[in-house]
Amino acid sequence: MLMDESEKDKVAEEVANGSIPIHQIEKFAPDANEEVEIRRLAVAKVCKIKLGSLASKETDYSLLKGKNAENVIGMVRVPLGVAGPLKVNGAEFIGDALVPMATTEGALIASVSRGMKAINLSGGAISRVIEDGMTRGPVFELNSVVDAQRFVKEWLPKNLDNIKAVAQGTTSHGRLKGIKPKIQGNNVFLRFTYDTGDAMGMNMSTIATEAACRYIEDNFEGISLVAVSGNFCSDKKQSLVNALEGRGKSVVAEAVIGERVLAEVLKTKAAAVNNVNYKKNWIGSATAGALTQFNAHFANSIAAIFLATGQDIAQVVESSSGYTITEVRGNDLYISVTLPSLEIGTVGGGTGLPTQGEALSIMDVFGSGNPPGSNSRKFAEIIAAAVLAGELNLLAALATRDLGKAHSKLGRNKKQ
Amino acid sequence: MLMDESEKDKVAEEVANGSIPIHQIEKFAPDANEEVEIRRLAVAKVCKIKLGSLASKETDYSLLKGKNAENVIGMVRVPLGVAGPLKVNGAEFIGDALVPMATTEGALIASVSRGMKAINLSGGAISRVIEDGMTRGPVFELNSVVDAQRFVKEWLPKNLDNIKAVAQGTTSHGRLKGIKPKIQGNNVFLRFTYDTGDAMGMNMSTIATEAACRYIEDNFEGISLVAVSGNFCSDKKQSLVNALEGRGKSVVAEAVIGERVLAEVLKTKAAAVNNVNYKKNWIGSATAGALTQFNAHFANSIAAIFLATGQDIAQVVESSSGYTITEVRGNDLYISVTLPSLEIGTVGGGTGLPTQGEALSIMDVFGSGNPPGSNSRKFAEIIAAAVLAGELNLLAALATRDLGKAHSKLGRNKKQ
Amino acid sequence: MLMDESEKDKVAEEVANGSIPIHQIEKFAPDANEEVEIRRLAVAKVCKIKLGSLASKETDYSLLKGKNAENVIGMVRVPLGVAGPLKVNGAEFIGDALVPMATTEGALIASVSRGMKAINLSGGAISRVIEDGMTRGPVFELNSVVDAQRFVKEWLPKNLDNIKAVAQGTTSHGRLKGIKPKIQGNNVFLRFTYDTGDAMGMNMSTIATEAACRYIEDNFEGISLVAVSGNFCSDKKQSLVNALEGRGKSVVAEAVIGERVLAEVLKTKAAAVNNVNYKKNWIGSATAGALTQFNAHFANSIAAIFLATGQDIAQVVESSSGYTITEVRGNDLYISVTLPSLEIGTVGGGTGLPTQGEALSIMDVFGSGNPPGSNSRKFAEIIAAAVLAGELNLLAALATRDLGKAHSKLGRNKKQ
Amino acid sequence: MLMDESEKDKVAEEVANGSIPIHQIEKFAPDANEEVEIRRLAVAKVCKIKLGSLASKETDYSLLKGKNAENVIGMVRVPLGVAGPLKVNGAEFIGDALVPMATTEGALIASVSRGMKAINLSGGAISRVIEDGMTRGPVFELNSVVDAQRFVKEWLPKNLDNIKAVAQGTTSHGRLKGIKPKIQGNNVFLRFTYDTGDAMGMNMSTIATEAACRYIEDNFEGISLVAVSGNFCSDKKQSLVNALEGRGKSVVAEAVIGERVLAEVLKTKAAAVNNVNYKKNWIGSATAGALTQFNAHFANSIAAIFLATGQDIAQVVESSSGYTITEVRGNDLYISVTLPSLEIGTVGGGTGLPTQGEALSIMDVFGSGNPPGSNSRKFAEIIAAAVLAGELNLLAALATRDLGKAHSKLGRNKKQ
Repeated sequence: MLMDESEKDKVAEEVANGSIPIHQIEKFAPDANEEVEIRRLAVAKVCKIKLGSLASKETDYSLLKGKNAENVIGMVRVPLGVAGPLKVNGAEFIGDALVPMATTEGALIASVSRGMKAINLSGGAISRVIEDGMTRGPVFELNSVVDAQRFVKEWLPKNLDNIKAVAQGTTSHGRLKGIKPKIQGNNVFLRFTYDTGDAMGMNMSTIATEAACRYIEDNFEGISLVAVSGNFCSDKKQSLVNALEGRGKSVVAEAVIGERVLAEVLKTKAAAVNNVNYKKNWIGSATAGALTQFNAHFANSIAAIFLATGQDIAQVVESSSGYTITEVRGNDLYISVTLPSLEIGTVGGGTGLPTQGEALSIMDVFGSGNPPGSNSRKFAEIIAAAVLAGELNLLAALATRDLGKAHSKLGRNKKQ
Repeated sequence: MLMDESEKDKVAEEVANGSIPIHQIEKFAPDANEEVEIRRLAVAKVCKIKLGSLASKETDYSLLKGKNAENVIGMVRVPLGVAGPLKVNGAEFIGDALVPMATTEGALIASVSRGMKAINLSGGAISRVIEDGMTRGPVFELNSVVDAQRFVKEWLPKNLDNIKAVAQGTTSHGRLKGIKPKIQGNNVFLRFTYDTGDAMGMNMSTIATEAACRYIEDNFEGISLVAVSGNFCSDKKQSLVNALEGRGKSVVAEAVIGERVLAEVLKTKAAAVNNVNYKKNWIGSATAGALTQFNAHFANSIAAIFLATGQDIAQVVESSSGYTITEVRGNDLYISVTLPSLEIGTVGGGTGLPTQGEALSIMDVFGSGNPPGSNSRKFAEIIAAAVLAGELNLLAALATRDLGKAHSKLGRNKKQ
Repeated sequence: MLMDESEKDKVAEEVANGSIPIHQIEKFAPDANEEVEIRRLAVAKVCKIKLGSLASKETDYSLLKGKNAENVIGMVRVPLGVAGPLKVNGAEFIGDALVPMATTEGALIASVSRGMKAINLSGGAISRVIEDGMTRGPVFELNSVVDAQRFVKEWLPKNLDNIKAVAQGTTSHGRLKGIKPKIQGNNVFLRFTYDTGDAMGMNMSTIATEAACRYIEDNFEGISLVAVSGNFCSDKKQSLVNALEGRGKSVVAEAVIGERVLAEVLKTKAAAVNNVNYKKNWIGSATAGALTQFNAHFANSIAAIFLATGQDIAQVVESSSGYTITEVRGNDLYISVTLPSLEIGTVGGGTGLPTQGEALSIMDVFGSGNPPGSNSRKFAEIIAAAVLAGELNLLAALATRDLGKAHSKLGRNKKQ
Repeated sequence: MLMDESEKDKVAEEVANGSIPIHQIEKFAPDANEEVEIRRLAVAKVCKIKLGSLASKETDYSLLKGKNAENVIGMVRVPLGVAGPLKVNGAEFIGDALVPMATTEGALIASVSRGMKAINLSGGAISRVIEDGMTRGPVFELNSVVDAQRFVKEWLPKNLDNIKAVAQGTTSHGRLKGIKPKIQGNNVFLRFTYDTGDAMGMNMSTIATEAACRYIEDNFEGISLVAVSGNFCSDKKQSLVNALEGRGKSVVAEAVIGERVLAEVLKTKAAAVNNVNYKKNWIGSATAGALTQFNAHFANSIAAIFLATGQDIAQVVESSSGYTITEVRGNDLYISVTLPSLEIGTVGGGTGLPTQGEALSIMDVFGSGNPPGSNSRKFAEIIAAAVLAGELNLLAALATRDLGKAHSKLGRNKKQ
């Protein structure tokens, strides 16, 4: 400890009484760890509460300072369990995966594990990445559609190589795969797609696109950038352009569950699961006006895995888009999940934090893969297979009317 | 410690070699804490890795066992910072709030804080809960639309009181506010809406609805429940029914930002922000095919606050739905955010975990409010105001083209 | 003839050379018929073409002048055929209906007729109107959400009777059934729903809503009408609010097609039709991003019947929204269509024109019904049943891969 | 007349009493005209009504027999007026256009004409076709995503030339421009896009795609066509894929309306129109859940022009998709309309019928253009400009609150 308790308390008191702004504490603290302590102390004083649990003395705050968060006062802790093992027959990941899931919602991990058991007994889940690329979609304005058309149809194709060079000049890993333009009146949206290796790549894509936008403004008379993100990306938003064109990884996982496994593990039949899927995930979602989520609960598995592994939690939104398809094949059940916009990385963001890195290591996908990009694709294959397990289990549980029971049993009082 | 190291290692070894299934470790462990340790040890053996950071010896696992997660091997730790303070002029929360945000994405907390500063200097954010109710939407099938119509138009209105009694009989806090029916061919969807006090209430709503469904099946000849959740809820899914009818809290926050604050704090002008909002959040979202997210990045603030306070992370999906409206008023800027389906609680779920509870305490909304429901409404008012700050700041940053710069400065290398 | 040829030619010449504006011809014409002739002559001169076919000397233009169109130069003629008969088991229409369809697309009427044959042999189509009401949705702006909330939650419920009186004071037939409010920031949308008897009622609803809006502006301080139609209606637009809440008539038609009829008339099996329906109308529509049209071609039947009977052709848009549901029942096929927003009338608009009135008479639904509203409901039951026939036939044709063949045979060259 | 009255009456009687099926009348009639007369007579007998107006003795039914409709009993007649003239500054059409509109809705033509006047006084409308291509989207099923991926990623690119040759072998005019694939689980959707010259081209595209599908099934082991139209087209349905990728013509029209024209012709100001557009067409449409129609009433102009010119009326549905953008420029108003999926032709379908052909001639776009395709592109430019006029006028009318008044004045009673 570099600063004694009374010194820290004094600074905290000055923050609490307004003499020192909260974001300037770092000027008065000898290192990142003491800074967090003082700030926590100050917040406790302001709020007249105790903040003991958040302290997390096990954490070295210098690892995350200036990288992962600002105004830090501690660490929130979320239970991390493992679902599985799950047999995954991917193109790149072949084997049994234990899947780390962080959640505060009881029954989730147990439920997904039951789906995994049924899949394992049926030979495992096939899983494939079918598209891969991170996007950024700026919006420009011009005087007239005449200019917009000339820009999109003439100038852009001619200058694509230059734009590519400029964009890629900002990054050592990223590669610009293409640009999809869209004219709206006198405005032009461009959707840049990048190969970002094992990183989720949003930040890399933004910086590269900003450089490209500057080049465009400098070289096409009369065009003006409105915003480097024009929601045509679409980041942290569900949209059809994401579902149609993909964002991050587009992944499909599937399995054929035999009649006997259905009966013994899931206590149901193929036709019953198929009926629930049809009426809930297709007719129900359409009736509710759900545009990209024709599924039962992709979000549950996605959120828990994202949280466990240091992904951007805000991207649970569009990463949970997708479609669950079932077919009755004789007395067996074919089931697939298609995730068009699964945005993940195994390097960068929160993946390098200690606990999150360990979670990735459980699946052997921590850090950069060899070749680059392979770790994030393996990770995508595992996630899709886990999502499949979650869908299978919930559809079966609904078919046998076990939903509330599962929650009740796992630690919730019936009367609440 | 109740079990010595070699004993724990032995059990872990048996799990690793398959003699003991992973979910049966509890039978061999003297208490919840040792169980977690053995399981973590076993996973480490299976994966041939070390799992030191996840250990979190500061956590008492008996608090969450059987409630928040299964197959737990440790705790994931996420940095928690505070944004603000933010002046909130709510109907129930009036005052300055420090807003806890847990994130691994650098720049977010600093950015939202800048928006908060601009709002504070403009008199604060007005915030109002305009609807409140948690929903569950089962789907039933009947033989014919004739039966469906008779059920919906005749039987249901006559038996509403009975259904209410049955549903409410399962809960001491919940109250059934109403049922919205929808006929699709020979199927009927019913959207049950509950007042769930300070709890988010999804589980309570499911159990009550299951009871109601049983009553319906027992008392209307020829109706059959397909699934207690028919996606007409819509839980963990964005949908228009959520946006139109509300789910959880529907909240609006707004502020008028003066010309001078725009210039000095945000380095921009009202017309520029308004133009970005129009072309990005309205034209851009529509072009991308985003159905319920006509906003810039609600998801960022929502995700960080949800994670900090023990909310259900999978509900970031629909809680991030919403609309950002700007107007130029003279040289000032009117800005509002409307969040139709913000699903939150201050009791239940993950809110009672130690660190999450402390985060809620920072805003003085931990646990049950007085009167019941008031804590969750106060919390909703604060979240909406924080989301407003996030929108204001990002729109202004885009208008001045500072997006990439903000990320670069806060600890990311330009070349990545 | 009141004006000789040379006189008419002289006026037409002056229009052609710009001395008389085209919309002022009526000042120089003795009656509506001569006016049309002169205008047609003038257009022919301007365009240097002959306009013989448009003349339609069989038409008395005084019937439509000032009511159905302006600047009329003749009548467009579209072939009108009859599909059916179709056995309809409605709540109000019970019997065999010949369904008039006006179209220029060969094969349509023959195709729908084949579907009708299959339905007839299976006992006919059950058809039910499940909701009924025309809507108008103005948008208002206020200073703040505080005012918006006060207006919606306090003032509006208290003043509903007054608003109803004012709205209904503009109409002798219309009745205001209810108002659905929606707050968006500082804006309020109100969706007024009217019972409009046998009229489609858009115009009646607009006039009544305008009066209501004036009353609201006069009596609630600080509210300002932006537009009497705020697209929350939604007129001539597909939207989820129409699909969820209904607009015009919400109708369901259904039938169970026996195995033998499937084989003999439609040359297919229940499972094949069901598979096409699932993969095309549900998975396909969802993949394409179709929000309210989970059907194969409602639009074809709707458009042809609307055109034949003088409906508002622009309303084909949302009237074509809807859902086709199939189920395999043993070896039989259950099929239903749900049309949430079928906007039709049997009085007003184009229904009173001579040929359109005759088309309505073929189904015995011309003019006002007894009781009022019954004719338009009967008409809705027939339309839904006809739409069902169109869906059944097309799904079966696709299942047997007959689509292109049907078009080729009916008068189109294979090479085109 | 080839058959005397009593002979015709006798056949009609036999149809009425069921001895002769209605679709077999042609066997008993000497020619198409007598056939129509007998059928009309029979329908009149069946329905016990008179069908005088539908007769249309001015029509030669042999022109449409076996091509445009079946079971024909007459012609429905719809008033056709002309809006304009409208100054269009297209890429291919430059000049003043009189725009034929067939409608039964009073006030429409007059309203659009007022918008045209404002545009003319502002220098006319710029209009551009930005995309062009008709689509058909079959759906195939395979055993597994592994096969689906191999088909899409390997086989399809290698065999594209063969598929093109097969598809184009069915048509002398059509050209396959490309195929957009989409994997959903074990299913594959392919969106074929064709250049179809001056024809709308739906039929041509279907026949060519059917041939391509046969080739695919014959040459890729294990693929099976489910339906030649998998709703990924999307024909007669609004969808995001149509809005994003275009279908038929994608067109933009725009104009800058000067302050004085706004005041004198439209009685309003730029800011007022802009506010109505923002709150109605963007916020209102989004609130209502309208996915592709962020406009006021594209459908009105589209429907009236389609009906006048023999287009496929069912395609009014997706042809009415689109976006209206306004900007305040000083005191002037910039306004644009973007129509992503305007499906039109100047040859084929109903365009060759006598009255419809004359309507096309008024704009000098009847039949094949020189070069081929130019007539349909000119027509698209005119339609977009007319749609622009309709939007401008309605937004201005709403801004000055003239909507109901316009309808009342043009021949509707206030009390209805």
